[in-house]
Amino acid sequence: MRTRVTELLGVEAPIIQGAMARISDARLAAAVSEAGGLGVIACGGAPLDWVSEQVAEARTMTDKPLGANVMLMDPQAPELAKLLCELDIDVVTTGAGSPAEFIAMWKKADIRVLPVVASATQARRMERLGADAIIAEGTESGGHVGELATMALVPAVCNAVRIPVVAAGGVADGRGMLAAFALGAEGVQCGTRFLTVEECTVAEAYKQKVLGARDSDTIVTGRDSGHPVRCLKNRFAREARKIESDPARAAEREHLYSGSLARAVSGDVEGGSVMAGQVAGIVSERKTAADVIAGMTAEAELLATCSLEKLATVNALRNTQRDLLNTEVVQGSDPCTTHVPTGGSNG
Amino acid sequence: MRTRVTELLGVEAPIIQGAMARISDARLAAAVSEAGGLGVIACGGAPLDWVSEQVAEARTMTDKPLGANVMLMDPQAPELAKLLCELDIDVVTTGAGSPAEFIAMWKKADIRVLPVVASATQARRMERLGADAIIAEGTESGGHVGELATMALVPAVCNAVRIPVVAAGGVADGRGMLAAFALGAEGVQCGTRFLTVEECTVAEAYKQKVLGARDSDTIVTGRDSGHPVRCLKNRFAREARKIESDPARAAEREHLYSGSLARAVSGDVEGGSVMAGQVAGIVSERKTAADVIAGMTAEAELLATCSLEKLATVNALRNTQRDLLNTEVVQGSDPCTTHVPTGGSNG
Repeated sequence: MRTRVTELLGVEAPIIQGAMARISDARLAAAVSEAGGLGVIACGGAPLDWVSEQVAEARTMTDKPLGANVMLMDPQAPELAKLLCELDIDVVTTGAGSPAEFIAMWKKADIRVLPVVASATQARRMERLGADAIIAEGTESGGHVGELATMALVPAVCNAVRIPVVAAGGVADGRGMLAAFALGAEGVQCGTRFLTVEECTVAEAYKQKVLGARDSDTIVTGRDSGHPVRCLKNRFAREARKIESDPARAAEREHLYSGSLARAVSGDVEGGSVMAGQVAGIVSERKTAADVIAGMTAEAELLATCSLEKLATVNALRNTQRDLLNTEVVQGSDPCTTHVPTGGSNG
Repeated sequence: MRTRVTELLGVEAPIIQGAMARISDARLAAAVSEAGGLGVIACGGAPLDWVSEQVAEARTMTDKPLGANVMLMDPQAPELAKLLCELDIDVVTTGAGSPAEFIAMWKKADIRVLPVVASATQARRMERLGADAIIAEGTESGGHVGELATMALVPAVCNAVRIPVVAAGGVADGRGMLAAFALGAEGVQCGTRFLTVEECTVAEAYKQKVLGARDSDTIVTGRDSGHPVRCLKNRFAREARKIESDPARAAEREHLYSGSLARAVSGDVEGGSVMAGQVAGIVSERKTAADVIAGMTAEAELLATCSLEKLATVNALRNTQRDLLNTEVVQGSDPCTTHVPTGGSNG
């Protein structure tokens, strides 16, 4: 598939693996890149040595394009920004702030720059600063979130800029990928979907928690403090919500939040912050990164061949004859030529 | 177009006009139904006499299927539920509670029942109770909202039930309609999009506020009280947010909220609660209800004929050559046969 995003990034599939702090390391990023997407090493808060090591390690596993993510609130962002120019990195995605002071340097180093934004106003500002594309991330995402949902955010961002838009938040399968393209995106970014793949080194307990989650099992902590983070409901989240709006409990809060992601990543899924998006509710398989990318793309392409009416027919078929669909239609034949009677009130 | 939703409701287009308390009256509902969608009169909190009058008035304007919405928290819901069986109503949509005690009565009266839900668990419960279809409403909607966004909610609900799913929240044009179908829906419900149509009797100032809104101009009030409502940012919303979490200011809050929707509907768009969804950011035209339905359907059908790659090409074309697209492509010719060069890093 060829879109402005695949051309810009030099990848085969317009699928970016969302940066997940302390989780997306060389192994996951290289697996995604090797499978034709764009793998992204999350540098947020990590020592610079770790970043250099991870990039070098990823390079032993793939020679395809590779990305790194910079959390701009990170106090060492300036050093990291410079380091990335020296390393063999093709793409930088940025979050939590404005990359204004680094863009010229990165572009000089032939690095593509894709800021993550949460509104059309931010997108327009990033375009003016020289961003190559925009990652528009909806509030359904895991980790740090904005307020706008993908369904409203992506069309608004597309109305506002001329550079390509990548949709993030709510995309975990071919249905979400086609929806993102329908809304105006030319690529997608998925975080949660890659949490449970085999190449992801997060603790097994974390994966189990994501695989077992229902759609309504996420919650946003820190809304009152201005740093909203979406994670799965657990003891940590309940405690955080209980004390987060009480000014008298700031010290307690500080203690609770400190190291909360690290705890979850290493397997303490009750006492840590198990960051995940709302699509955890539809992620129920492990797969490999390559299977995720191939499966998502194939499903989206198959659905994209259907007219609106045929899409509805496929949806009806999927709902009413789930078992049949799983074995016959999705795995090969063309759902758009398969007709089911459209039922009356008995559905 | 024929989907399980059009068959179930007896309509031409699988587009339901979302009930908006104090706003969607006979005039708006009849216009939507007459245009081929399903118009819905919002009964929430209104006197029963008003409901009877509005249904009778709508019937002078259309003989097509017509819906009514019941807010189940409404103390007079039992009387209203009974009244709707006597009136000439084809469909009931329900919100804010469980319609368990009314479903048998409605079905006996040959009324189709579509509960609005905010999670897969609720959807499953409604299916067991005998609902004919599910309206899965994302948090991007206007008015009373849940936590799940449409991108995550709709696939999760589709995975959970066999009856048809209608997507609500984030749908205001053909892009959103196709996205909803991609996610698994067989119909859409739009509220905000119908706020600004000519047949909507809401105050002109309210329409202006919606037409002028950016994507980030909505806010949720009442989250702490367990009754979250999405409205446009204004003096009312700022005051509500300031006092809503302070137990000592309950009386003040009561005073502020009392009549806040009525104030907005009659034109006080600073002191009232101007309920609207996040898609207010992409609604910038008035149109008629018929134009909205025809335009949304035509755009969705056009986009649905494109492969994933061609969708990306259309999106690129829309972004880079907006003026050309507006005059030539959208108004007639087929965007999927129009090629634009996929650009490099200069977008």
